[in-house]
Amino acid sequence: MGEFDLIARYFTRPAARAVLGVGDDCALLQPTPGTQLAISSDMLVEGRHFFADVDPFSLGHKALAVNLSDLAACGATPLAFTLALALPRIDEPWLEAFSRGLLALADAHGCELVGGDTTQGPLNICITVFGEVPVVNGKSQALLRSGARAGDDIYVSGTLGDARLALEAMRGSINLPADLLAQARGRLERPTPRVALGQALRGVASAALDISDGLLGDLRHILKASGVGATLDTSIAIELIAARDHPACAKGLISLKNQLDYVLAGGDDYELAFTAPVSAREAVLAAERQAGTPVTRIGCIDAEPGLRLVDGSGQAVSNSYTSFDHFA
Amino acid sequence: MGEFDLIARYFTRPAARAVLGVGDDCALLQPTPGTQLAISSDMLVEGRHFFADVDPFSLGHKALAVNLSDLAACGATPLAFTLALALPRIDEPWLEAFSRGLLALADAHGCELVGGDTTQGPLNICITVFGEVPVVNGKSQALLRSGARAGDDIYVSGTLGDARLALEAMRGSINLPADLLAQARGRLERPTPRVALGQALRGVASAALDISDGLLGDLRHILKASGVGATLDTSIAIELIAARDHPACAKGLISLKNQLDYVLAGGDDYELAFTAPVSAREAVLAAERQAGTPVTRIGCIDAEPGLRLVDGSGQAVSNSYTSFDHFA
Repeated sequence: MGEFDLIARYFTRPAARAVLGVGDDCALLQPTPGTQLAISSDMLVEGRHFFADVDPFSLGHKALAVNLSDLAACGATPLAFTLALALPRIDEPWLEAFSRGLLALADAHGCELVGGDTTQGPLNICITVFGEVPVVNGKSQALLRSGARAGDDIYVSGTLGDARLALEAMRGSINLPADLLAQARGRLERPTPRVALGQALRGVASAALDISDGLLGDLRHILKASGVGATLDTSIAIELIAARDHPACAKGLISLKNQLDYVLAGGDDYELAFTAPVSAREAVLAAERQAGTPVTRIGCIDAEPGLRLVDGSGQAVSNSYTSFDHFA
Repeated sequence: MGEFDLIARYFTRPAARAVLGVGDDCALLQPTPGTQLAISSDMLVEGRHFFADVDPFSLGHKALAVNLSDLAACGATPLAFTLALALPRIDEPWLEAFSRGLLALADAHGCELVGGDTTQGPLNICITVFGEVPVVNGKSQALLRSGARAGDDIYVSGTLGDARLALEAMRGSINLPADLLAQARGRLERPTPRVALGQALRGVASAALDISDGLLGDLRHILKASGVGATLDTSIAIELIAARDHPACAKGLISLKNQLDYVLAGGDDYELAFTAPVSAREAVLAAERQAGTPVTRIGCIDAEPGLRLVDGSGQAVSNSYTSFDHFA
């Protein structure tokens, strides 16, 4: 099987919304009048973003999910994506499962594979994703990192820390029963991009991003871009790993210190962190219901720069958490 | 230096035409009304697309050039691109030169770096490029592979075979004097994407693509997509490496067999191959002048399927050339 057969067999479908899909020098998209195009690109490398033995269906899912998560953070509606793939060799069962995982998630979001590249090399998956954001009365509805204002509430979607929990168990640094590991591992290997929530937050949230490197580290990007500070309540944060209900926590398998560490600086969560004015609390609840994705209010934006952690009684908690850096 | 410093230092500039550039979850582009968006993605891997010791300025140039070449083949006007980069380590002099080569070519084409990703891993460069194609009276002006018709002329731009000449000399399979090697190597390592020619051929060419895997192999994509055949005159083809004038040929350093092999199946040329009706010959000449890029008529499209080679007197020449396949 050569390069072109591979593309034809696993990665070519008739163009649906695209004017022209896989198979020419370029793909062609016809932008919807009155919209902006949102673009994001993520590269996944073996040993860095996934283990060599990860099941290829999950890997196909995750490679697209982390990109859709960027569209979600921007409030964009997914349209299409390109896939560039370096493979050590042609392994048909692997390609079959990888493409199934990839295209199942793509179909679930109406996001069309329109082009890309395949080559031989160390396993590397690079996806670039395209979405649309409406422009209303001349104003882009895109959610940016720069819109947070002092007094805004800070929210996160879903739960945090599960991916890190799985990672630590797979590394052997903590012990988890098989059923709990499988549950956490599902969150690590098949994250859910919060696409519907992102769209529901257009015109509601003042700033947003997706949490890929850990809540505290990523939140700093909003603070920096918006020129503000923040105070987070760690007693609420700790509930984000469902500390009181999560079996692994309830059974005392994870220390409180580790729980906090996983929630605040775990990474690979692909939840949304966003801010919204206090006046928008009802609208945030409506967005939560509309998207079917739980959100939790975890703190507030301050005029004073810096990121402060407090416990349930308002006492300062020291912040020595560091976020993930690919070159640290 | 961490991931974010690296991006800030080498790959961040203020957005020019883009609504939002590097630094948020997504970049934002505002499409021009009445245009379609052309998208292409190429991944370059060390040892496969370039030698480990290639100078990083040239590599930055080439990584974008091969993508711009796809836009050229489509007749698109370059707009913007994303860069995803896996690096074994942070090597500042390398990054400085790589980004200079990349951004110099980007500036020359008004093509803006709007986002991407950096991670640690075996060296891998994945660029996705965006361009615009006008829609005139409801008809897209994009040049596709599928528009060739029996009777059309076949053309190629510039010269072919120089990149392969350099590759063979660098592999030691032929000997070239240093000055001739430097000249050929420039074509291999810093190819010229034929962007102006592609745009000038909108409404003139019936089909087009860029030659990356070798003329004969790539031309077959046009024949297959258009449901036609072709006859090529190898006596003209051989002039494309300037056989009579090229010093390496004139000095007898390259056998006629090798000359034909390099021109017809050399690869890495990044010239355009295109077809146009006989009635458009004057318009092709005008496009050639407008773009300042020489084009040569090398054959014609036939209704009969298959690709036939003939010599200057019309006698059949056997065709045993194979094009490059990353997994062959």
